[in-house]
Amino acid sequence: MARPSLRDKLVEAALERLHAQGFSGCSVQDITEAAGAPKGSFYNHFKTKELLALEALNRYRNESRVDILLKGADPPLQRLQAHFEFLAERQKRWDFQRGCMIGNFGTDMADAYPAMRAALADTMRDWAGAIAAVLRQAQAQGAVSADKDPDRIARFLVDAWEGVVIRARMVKSGAPFDDFFEVAFADLLGAGAPGGRCSGA
Amino acid sequence: MARPSLRDKLVEAALERLHAQGFSGCSVQDITEAAGAPKGSFYNHFKTKELLALEALNRYRNESRVDILLKGADPPLQRLQAHFEFLAERQKRWDFQRGCMIGNFGTDMADAYPAMRAALADTMRDWAGAIAAVLRQAQAQGAVSADKDPDRIARFLVDAWEGVVIRARMVKSGAPFDDFFEVAFADLLGAGAPGGRCSGA
Repeated sequence: MARPSLRDKLVEAALERLHAQGFSGCSVQDITEAAGAPKGSFYNHFKTKELLALEALNRYRNESRVDILLKGADPPLQRLQAHFEFLAERQKRWDFQRGCMIGNFGTDMADAYPAMRAALADTMRDWAGAIAAVLRQAQAQGAVSADKDPDRIARFLVDAWEGVVIRARMVKSGAPFDDFFEVAFADLLGAGAPGGRCSGA
Repeated sequence: MARPSLRDKLVEAALERLHAQGFSGCSVQDITEAAGAPKGSFYNHFKTKELLALEALNRYRNESRVDILLKGADPPLQRLQAHFEFLAERQKRWDFQRGCMIGNFGTDMADAYPAMRAALADTMRDWAGAIAAVLRQAQAQGAVSADKDPDRIARFLVDAWEGVVIRARMVKSGAPFDDFFEVAFADLLGAGAPGGRCSGA
């Protein structure tokens, strides 16, 4: 296997450092040091720190297992739950530090960096789109009420997830994830109750 | 009326600058300049930038109209909606810049600043507590199903709000707020449909 290029090392280091320190809190020097690269080498590979952050975001997206949503033989809502469980486990593995890079960059960069702002909006749209597809499958199978708008609920769920991750950082525990799973799946989607959300009414 | 003290000017400037630039992106000098104060004066009043950020957070909380939730003769869910509408209008007035200071500090400071982390966790807990009280009133009046857990839903709603605000910054529009109002009130709380959430089932 080829040794990773210096460029690749910089992206890897940026993925880790920008996530841990935030865009404003992380200097080019922090990244080159983590990559074991001379500071001067950075600008041979990236014109700006924002361009490197965009590549780090892309790598973060690719590691966020959206594929779980749309592959496999499990019922749709089970795949949806497995996707969010993967994300919750990852936050736990990170000791409820760092948060989600998408929400972090949204907080840190959405006002001042138009290219990042657009990339983040696209990321949220694509993510919600995959979830909406799962919700449509669940509706087709009668697991989610047909009167719900799958696109709107999907957008709301990814938004809610970003907020849940922030509170998990505040309380340094997974309790906010428990709230998310319970409210999103039982109260909002009516999963878990045979016959759907109105079974107890 | 007494002229504002230098200390007060610093808190006012911090409320504005820390909100706009984030904790990492805003220097003590940015704050003293905005306050029209000499840089050296800062440390006469605050030992650290974090202590000033805690005061700014407190002021931000006081301006977030949690009082709307618990006062007045309107039905509980109407008060809940009015509270979030106030917050949405404020984001609109800020041109979908800045976001919510609570979520911003959660992203920027929750890992490295234990006093801020605790203050943010308290802030979210108190906010959710006020919303849970409203939901209990709504349940007592039959406007929200009695089988829902008001504390859990309240925690979920404040989390979701923080994420919705971030996406509004990404898309620079109020569309995420529309999603929030529709999903939270119609799908989750069953408001707006006479007879409650199962009327159409």
